Amino acid sequence: MIKAGIIGATGYAGAELVRILLGHKDVEIKWLGSRSYIDKKYASVYQNMFQLIEGNCLDDNIEELVKQADVVFTATPQGFLASVMKEAYLEQAKFIDLSADYRLKDVKIYEQWYKIEHKSPQFIQEAVYGLCEINRGQVKDARLVANPGCYTTCSILTAYPLVREGLIDADTLIIDAKSGTSGAGRGAKTANLFCEVNENIKAYGITSHRHTPEIEEQLGYAAGRKMTVSFTPHLVPMNRGILACEYASLIKKPDGSLPSESEIRGAYEKYYSGEKFIRLLEPDVFPETKWVEGSNFVDINFKIDERTGRIIMIGALDNLVKGAAGQAVQNMNLMFGLEESEGLAFVPLFP
Amino acid sequence: MIKAGIIGATGYAGAELVRILLGHKDVEIKWLGSRSYIDKKYASVYQNMFQLIEGNCLDDNIEELVKQADVVFTATPQGFLASVMKEAYLEQAKFIDLSADYRLKDVKIYEQWYKIEHKSPQFIQEAVYGLCEINRGQVKDARLVANPGCYTTCSILTAYPLVREGLIDADTLIIDAKSGTSGAGRGAKTANLFCEVNENIKAYGITSHRHTPEIEEQLGYAAGRKMTVSFTPHLVPMNRGILACEYASLIKKPDGSLPSESEIRGAYEKYYSGEKFIRLLEPDVFPETKWVEGSNFVDINFKIDERTGRIIMIGALDNLVKGAAGQAVQNMNLMFGLEESEGLAFVPLFP
Amino acid sequence: MIKAGIIGATGYAGAELVRILLGHKDVEIKWLGSRSYIDKKYASVYQNMFQLIEGNCLDDNIEELVKQADVVFTATPQGFLASVMKEAYLEQAKFIDLSADYRLKDVKIYEQWYKIEHKSPQFIQEAVYGLCEINRGQVKDARLVANPGCYTTCSILTAYPLVREGLIDADTLIIDAKSGTSGAGRGAKTANLFCEVNENIKAYGITSHRHTPEIEEQLGYAAGRKMTVSFTPHLVPMNRGILACEYASLIKKPDGSLPSESEIRGAYEKYYSGEKFIRLLEPDVFPETKWVEGSNFVDINFKIDERTGRIIMIGALDNLVKGAAGQAVQNMNLMFGLEESEGLAFVPLFP
Amino acid sequence: MIKAGIIGATGYAGAELVRILLGHKDVEIKWLGSRSYIDKKYASVYQNMFQLIEGNCLDDNIEELVKQADVVFTATPQGFLASVMKEAYLEQAKFIDLSADYRLKDVKIYEQWYKIEHKSPQFIQEAVYGLCEINRGQVKDARLVANPGCYTTCSILTAYPLVREGLIDADTLIIDAKSGTSGAGRGAKTANLFCEVNENIKAYGITSHRHTPEIEEQLGYAAGRKMTVSFTPHLVPMNRGILACEYASLIKKPDGSLPSESEIRGAYEKYYSGEKFIRLLEPDVFPETKWVEGSNFVDINFKIDERTGRIIMIGALDNLVKGAAGQAVQNMNLMFGLEESEGLAFVPLFP
Repeated sequence: MIKAGIIGATGYAGAELVRILLGHKDVEIKWLGSRSYIDKKYASVYQNMFQLIEGNCLDDNIEELVKQADVVFTATPQGFLASVMKEAYLEQAKFIDLSADYRLKDVKIYEQWYKIEHKSPQFIQEAVYGLCEINRGQVKDARLVANPGCYTTCSILTAYPLVREGLIDADTLIIDAKSGTSGAGRGAKTANLFCEVNENIKAYGITSHRHTPEIEEQLGYAAGRKMTVSFTPHLVPMNRGILACEYASLIKKPDGSLPSESEIRGAYEKYYSGEKFIRLLEPDVFPETKWVEGSNFVDINFKIDERTGRIIMIGALDNLVKGAAGQAVQNMNLMFGLEESEGLAFVPLFP
Repeated sequence: MIKAGIIGATGYAGAELVRILLGHKDVEIKWLGSRSYIDKKYASVYQNMFQLIEGNCLDDNIEELVKQADVVFTATPQGFLASVMKEAYLEQAKFIDLSADYRLKDVKIYEQWYKIEHKSPQFIQEAVYGLCEINRGQVKDARLVANPGCYTTCSILTAYPLVREGLIDADTLIIDAKSGTSGAGRGAKTANLFCEVNENIKAYGITSHRHTPEIEEQLGYAAGRKMTVSFTPHLVPMNRGILACEYASLIKKPDGSLPSESEIRGAYEKYYSGEKFIRLLEPDVFPETKWVEGSNFVDINFKIDERTGRIIMIGALDNLVKGAAGQAVQNMNLMFGLEESEGLAFVPLFP
Repeated sequence: MIKAGIIGATGYAGAELVRILLGHKDVEIKWLGSRSYIDKKYASVYQNMFQLIEGNCLDDNIEELVKQADVVFTATPQGFLASVMKEAYLEQAKFIDLSADYRLKDVKIYEQWYKIEHKSPQFIQEAVYGLCEINRGQVKDARLVANPGCYTTCSILTAYPLVREGLIDADTLIIDAKSGTSGAGRGAKTANLFCEVNENIKAYGITSHRHTPEIEEQLGYAAGRKMTVSFTPHLVPMNRGILACEYASLIKKPDGSLPSESEIRGAYEKYYSGEKFIRLLEPDVFPETKWVEGSNFVDINFKIDERTGRIIMIGALDNLVKGAAGQAVQNMNLMFGLEESEGLAFVPLFP
Repeated sequence: MIKAGIIGATGYAGAELVRILLGHKDVEIKWLGSRSYIDKKYASVYQNMFQLIEGNCLDDNIEELVKQADVVFTATPQGFLASVMKEAYLEQAKFIDLSADYRLKDVKIYEQWYKIEHKSPQFIQEAVYGLCEINRGQVKDARLVANPGCYTTCSILTAYPLVREGLIDADTLIIDAKSGTSGAGRGAKTANLFCEVNENIKAYGITSHRHTPEIEEQLGYAAGRKMTVSFTPHLVPMNRGILACEYASLIKKPDGSLPSESEIRGAYEKYYSGEKFIRLLEPDVFPETKWVEGSNFVDINFKIDERTGRIIMIGALDNLVKGAAGQAVQNMNLMFGLEESEGLAFVPLFP
């Protein structure tokens, strides 16, 4: 049995980790860290866990935690893990960080977008960006995995094959993303009250959302050069789900024609045909967040717009599963040599 | 492997059966019956099943189905199963009926509340009312199980121990129940459109909802005599979940005092302490539908009101799981000698 | 022009007052009090008011406010108005209090249910309970009106004629009420976050909700004696609306028969036939909250249950309008000799 | 009093017209046409209108209707008005068509996108596109107004000043729009059931939505040349509201710099500073649909993205008001020489 510790177990992503790990046959949860609820019964914070989890919330004593755990998940605010990480910890346990601390290779970009100083830049190079479908090989050997953001996972996977194959002009990429409200966390803020979110949709973080540089860096690797994207997230009155609608100009062929639907489809299949968690939908069937709810799937499809010469790519995932906890467990499976999909065989819940 | 056939596989309850059976290690789905979608890919009707189910919808050929299946689930409109049932079928396969056809022992009451003629009353006596926690023994030996209604499962289990122990005056029982909209089915009706249900709550079926006689019959067995209840269902703008708030006068003790909280709690524990799917919550923690969503749990608690001499009992379940498909699988497990909770270990999804 | 001041103008009820008074041809808003947002532009707290209200939020300086205003609305936490009220203020302006401070005539009951000391009990007797349809005459001459609670307005009006006419046994009255989330206010609490409320229904304040004694007192006047009720509120995933489902045993006639539908209907008509804001629906059409949203209407209907000898009465209103701000303006209209419905002719918004 | 007739009075847009006209002091509704509910009480189809409207639904007898009405609103399926329109009708009454029949000047484009033959193209040239803020002058003299689509009103007004002033490259315009579900109408379709829409977001009509050519034509007039746009609508789980997020490349100045924020703001102010129903929000405050709900406002703002050289423009309106019925009444006011905002002074409902 893999012994797992979670720091930040009472946020929505942390709680989803608990839900998933409870059903994972090779894992035992040893530590439910939650600074806000120390010594409180975990199941009194998440009543859905009543009779399923008996333990209390513990503090953030990593020193002690790494002695007891084989793997540590940190579902913590930006800057937390960077501020406490030590080489000694990495020698004792594997780390999967759901925050952004080790996602960006360029510490200056991190500090610029997150507006905090990075306290342990020495681990950034070692950290593996845990987008399993793309970095599977490196994840297997990693001690420290930077689990991708929810918007980024969806945004990158939706465009990746076309960027990689040079079928679209990367500089024209515009990502209009929509998220359920669990992405905003469980903090008590007026803006996230039911009455403020319900019957409402809004864009936020316009031109400044922190997932932007993460998308640019990763898709930049695929493009083979630096690139910028326009990324606009929206808050949608639903609990879970991210839908990314991505626009880009197709690169014309020498004869001036656009790539055909089958060429585009072929590119997607080239990268994803063996992927268990990526479902390339059938032509003219487009992703909807409800179809992936509660599961680790990413649904993807596209449509060529002959009139404008653009392609519209659409992806959907559950922000708490493939966008956070599910992907973290997928990374853990890889790191411990388990079947990659172990404990993740959730059939989407509908309706 | 148990071979299962589902008739009515494209209604919400049928689809939930598919979801649950897909994850059941001892079951193989052999027949996805759906009169409305014959020859259509099942996964095109429920896109969440894309790549998980390859088969097409089939018609309602029970003759053929019972040859291929060990167990037949019927998630069909009232009257369907009664109109086709034959002794020969029961000799070939076990039946679990999610409709009301065999729930009421008195055929006249069935015909009065459902306003249809019962076409095979000869099977009513044999049918076992599949409320596992109460009729476990009989279910094990049954060929034909009448799977209880969603409202009834919640309403009965919430009050059962107190009725059975004579702690409340059964004739004062009032059940005010609230349901998510999936209980109304997937039929295209104006009243169930998003814009009609959203931002709205209403009562319906006032004094006339068909689950009333079912509750009365079953709680009547517990009371040891005929009884009537007031039952009022409400439609709530959410997908899943039933909450039942039940009111009854406590029977005073000879000295005029009311039963104590510990006496009441003791009664619940007497019947439910060993039950895996019934969670009697801690004092002053009351059920919420979100805490059981996607799971087979029923959460229950109560509060004594000294001022009025009444008790308020509250129960919550997921109408598609414990209120329909989950309970059906629980019945199947019992009928086939499997672990009762096999395939039903869902951790509730929150948020 | 009537000069109006609002204390607590940035809560949901306060903001609804602003919305309604903005459209009232005889009123000018002079004071937008909000302790939390002093000196902030009101329209930056409620962006729906952008370009409609230019002023800033002011503090709670009642001394100054009563010099400028003819009427003061207090949409403030319990205890606030009681703690500051002085005879001098009442001589300068009329007060309409949306809190509970002057609703209950028995100060002990107030202190017992609200768990705070009442700081100015000397004004309780003078205060008029502002349920316009019942206390219209007294409201006209009042200096201090206690504006009824949202649950209470709905609960009382739904049962009042039958209690008053002795058609139901008042001691059997059970009120199961459901409310939209705006009733919980705009305070930033985890329990009111979108993700906690959405896809969820729960009961709360079971046997202990503070509107209970208010209902008991007012219906007690109608009954001509003290009475107790069971009152259970529920939180529903919608912004606005209250639905009350009320159960009571009908009083049998000397011949043992129940009152007829036309007798019951006659009782409702006796009290409500001339009421502009109470709509007694046609037989077998039952109230839904959406049908009154944004309006000052209360929709009411009932059903006799011959089987149980009970009647089910159902009422619906918009908790922020007839349940708070609309009723406050209705009271103001009466107090200032205006047409009672002035500024309240809202057609319900559907969908 | 202006006598108004409505054909299609029981769709959501028709019902919103009824709501608005009920409160319009210069209008009397003479005809509530609804083919589906002929002879049924209108208030039984829309119970929110109980006691506010006594009349029954009538059929579509335009011959008779134009004798009784000064203005006819048609909130009917595409093709209806075109198939019945005659010069004689236009001589008897003014027409405001909420369908698309007379919106597109090029009949071939109409037939291509709507896949129906246009039966009265002879009226297309005369018809005025009723986007009041842009075509006010022509509307005043019109006999036949083509009331713009909901998505189009929002999309056009959000980008208009920048296209008109040549500040953005019109060919790079991408519009990602999101709509509440009332835009899908009141027809009973499975895809619009509560359980299918709730907790879900999806794109639809990708590259093929019928509002695309309407946007292209109108913005093309502003650009002074033909242009194409990418337009992707989404269905959001809320009743009302449209949010359009629009992306375009800014045209660089001769020195290679981008237009400044104040230049952009100046362009918006040039066209909209006197507009009562267009609210250009303060810098860094972005539109949300809830802030305009129930009102005739369009809220607009923008953000320059220096990194990508693009501008993000965002607009929000209530699809049933400014996106349909409110704009129709605004057109009517202009056509009859009334104050343009008469009957439209709705304060947005929040929450």
